[in-house]
Amino acid sequence: MIELIFLKINRIIMLKILLCLLFINQVSAKEIFSKEYLKQVSTLRDKALTDTTAYDITESLTSEVGARLSGSEGDAKAVKWAIAKFKELNFDKVYTEPVIINKWVRGVETAEIISPYPHQIKITALGGSNPTPKKGITGEIVHFKSLQELKDADASLVKGKITFISDKMERTRNGSGYGKVNGGRYYAGSITAEKGGIGAIIRSIGTDNNRDPHTGGMKAVDTNKETGEMRFLSKDEVVPTGAISNPDADLLVNIIKRGNPVKFKYTLGGHWDGEYTSYNVIGEITGREKPDEVVVIGGHLDSWDLGTGAIDDGAGCGITMAAAKLIKDAGIQPYRTIRVILWANEEMGLSGAKTYAKNQSNNMKNHIIGAESDFGAGSIYAIESNVSEHALPVVAKIAELLKPLGIGYGGNNGGAAPDITPLKAAGMATFKLSQDGTKYFDLHHTQDDTMDKIVPEEIAQNVAVWIVFVALAAEYTGNFGFDLIDTDKT
Amino acid sequence: MIELIFLKINRIIMLKILLCLLFINQVSAKEIFSKEYLKQVSTLRDKALTDTTAYDITESLTSEVGARLSGSEGDAKAVKWAIAKFKELNFDKVYTEPVIINKWVRGVETAEIISPYPHQIKITALGGSNPTPKKGITGEIVHFKSLQELKDADASLVKGKITFISDKMERTRNGSGYGKVNGGRYYAGSITAEKGGIGAIIRSIGTDNNRDPHTGGMKAVDTNKETGEMRFLSKDEVVPTGAISNPDADLLVNIIKRGNPVKFKYTLGGHWDGEYTSYNVIGEITGREKPDEVVVIGGHLDSWDLGTGAIDDGAGCGITMAAAKLIKDAGIQPYRTIRVILWANEEMGLSGAKTYAKNQSNNMKNHIIGAESDFGAGSIYAIESNVSEHALPVVAKIAELLKPLGIGYGGNNGGAAPDITPLKAAGMATFKLSQDGTKYFDLHHTQDDTMDKIVPEEIAQNVAVWIVFVALAAEYTGNFGFDLIDTDKT
Repeated sequence: MIELIFLKINRIIMLKILLCLLFINQVSAKEIFSKEYLKQVSTLRDKALTDTTAYDITESLTSEVGARLSGSEGDAKAVKWAIAKFKELNFDKVYTEPVIINKWVRGVETAEIISPYPHQIKITALGGSNPTPKKGITGEIVHFKSLQELKDADASLVKGKITFISDKMERTRNGSGYGKVNGGRYYAGSITAEKGGIGAIIRSIGTDNNRDPHTGGMKAVDTNKETGEMRFLSKDEVVPTGAISNPDADLLVNIIKRGNPVKFKYTLGGHWDGEYTSYNVIGEITGREKPDEVVVIGGHLDSWDLGTGAIDDGAGCGITMAAAKLIKDAGIQPYRTIRVILWANEEMGLSGAKTYAKNQSNNMKNHIIGAESDFGAGSIYAIESNVSEHALPVVAKIAELLKPLGIGYGGNNGGAAPDITPLKAAGMATFKLSQDGTKYFDLHHTQDDTMDKIVPEEIAQNVAVWIVFVALAAEYTGNFGFDLIDTDKT
Repeated sequence: MIELIFLKINRIIMLKILLCLLFINQVSAKEIFSKEYLKQVSTLRDKALTDTTAYDITESLTSEVGARLSGSEGDAKAVKWAIAKFKELNFDKVYTEPVIINKWVRGVETAEIISPYPHQIKITALGGSNPTPKKGITGEIVHFKSLQELKDADASLVKGKITFISDKMERTRNGSGYGKVNGGRYYAGSITAEKGGIGAIIRSIGTDNNRDPHTGGMKAVDTNKETGEMRFLSKDEVVPTGAISNPDADLLVNIIKRGNPVKFKYTLGGHWDGEYTSYNVIGEITGREKPDEVVVIGGHLDSWDLGTGAIDDGAGCGITMAAAKLIKDAGIQPYRTIRVILWANEEMGLSGAKTYAKNQSNNMKNHIIGAESDFGAGSIYAIESNVSEHALPVVAKIAELLKPLGIGYGGNNGGAAPDITPLKAAGMATFKLSQDGTKYFDLHHTQDDTMDKIVPEEIAQNVAVWIVFVALAAEYTGNFGFDLIDTDKT
């Protein structure tokens, strides 16, 4: 990914960065942070590598709350848990922000190959899917090797049938395989409907070979670009859509290969169920000089309902809460406030992030920089920034303090994790801490997303890296660039 | 394991083997098999390494039949499939042998932690378990770290409670971790009942961290040692017993650690359901000189119901059917008959193996040697024998032809795969082809036992090794030792 990013950056920007980095090496250390401060942060970084705070927080959330689909009982419990946990961790300020969400509830889920060879199949509804009729949907399978094949297909091939997209996600460290296939998850249902199909199933978007399907959001609402108004897609516009596990997709492909028509039946009870008020839960370490100006970090508090949401995104909550807490415990009170936001309803539409960005739209100038941890608990191998050029010396200093951990710098064109995107769009500077996601998509959105997958040393390494980022970003007295909406980079 | 075996063999036997092996190197090649025959077998061995017959047979069984719990519709389909497949593969003789079994059917399976932290838990009934009442069993958990701890516990600790055994299986190449913990699966239900407990759950006997519990047989019947008569244990003698997945066991342990009473509820509908007639399905390559004398090989045709039974034991069926077929296709017709037996109901009590041994009790002299493939599709790394000493030169010749594949010899005190044990007990010489089982217990008895787990090159390597064993064993004109019941070794 780093290579790709470099390729993407145009040469002029590259030159500027290089000049900056050269410049930085000579002057920044003395000018931006005191030697004592850097030493204090480095000591804390090293201490954090064996600290268990993030692991313990994540274990607490997964054991005491567990699954917490937005709008479920687990959601309400998670909000209570988060308030109590922030207080227990001795944050200076703890509060919530109401977030109105559209609640989706999972229902019955069954699937089977009826003929020529009967098999029970593991299926899960995609989040936002309309339900099937109670007696299920029964029809012949029409097989497409990719979303593109479905898009290109003549409607006569699809009419009256159940579409099946079978391409498999590729395993990579940075998760780049995800974007190549998850279009199927988003659009299989609507494109099938458009072509007169009666149902849609997809191979799970995941790299594992367990018989555990991966859920995830699908295109279920239409947003009016002018008014911003949302509308649920009707049953004529999107068919009930489910994901089957990788082994079952392989089995289905093997049966299809034999050349005879394959009859399939599935039942999905998931459906929309009114509005619900959830909450962003926020904990702060108040800034020494500028309490109103904030460095925004956090993870999302909601999870899918199949697992206990350990890697998605209990870990992100644990890592960022621990980073802020360890900074405070070390007696460090940075220049600006560290605001840890545990976002509501990331999975079904970034509701918490959108609500927050809307509520803060007149206060964006106080949002100095932001980042989210939402890619599991694998070790961080690189950082990326998206800041004004004048702030690159600070980035370089962060990179310098991360070098002993073997962490590289991926350039100043960094992306942002999901809940940060509305703030980024509003102009906030952002940071990205890239984690090893080699195994992330084995577990993502499945029942296997559980605490046992988190390696204590790896989650602790995340905290160490976040401490360096947060402690320096919040201590830096300059601005990372509220004026950052940069046409070069969008 | 090899080292262990060597340690177990007493010194005198070791000396005898060494003398034999020295002797063999000089004389056996000429005397036992012709050079042409050995060359023919070696050529076939090498060809088999890239052959897809075993893979294709296993794919056919898992795709066209799938799950085939004894007594289920899948069982009947598997029998039909096996007859047709033997015929399609051009075996000389194809027939069945009726096997009366006690049929057990799975029912509803739910579990949850009720308090202090509610969680849905994945559970599966152990094969042979009595059902819970329809409303389930609800009670406080009493935690034991091993079966031994439960055995040692005072009955007052267990009375009125649900026992939970939490020790985890260790991953090893030879599967030796299995025997250390599977006593919990066999005896948790009966020991809990004995101490007045109301239910029993165990951590799955498996090495994976998927949220897929492992089923498997438990002690559910009592056999009168004198009359051999079987009797189902009553509800007072064995409590309904289920296995929960490794991640859920970890979660439960984490919650128990917090020190408050843990209330658990589970429902299992599995129950015994009368008698059923299944079949051993047998295919033969008729011997050139001694058609009535047989080398018995095979795998078991039944599987658990959760997966499609690819590694347990579709692969064993595929490997041994392919080995015999490839021998025939190569124009080799050995001195004696190759009898491939696809055994009925291995999983719930070796019914097929016991029935066959009983029916053949007056014909044991014609059973020259036997082996079963029942440990997945991982590569073979060693062979072991259990033959009369006079036949060790033949074993040495087999070992010699397997050396190019990097396969070692583990001594003449080899164990036997499950379906071979009744014949071994009746005095038949046996062979063991030890497979790499490092990943076997990730999948064993779970829904994840599916075709995608089989690596074509690995299953083909198995066939190559079986070809060498079978072609030489069936060509050898001597006897491997019907007189083998050897007090030295038992």
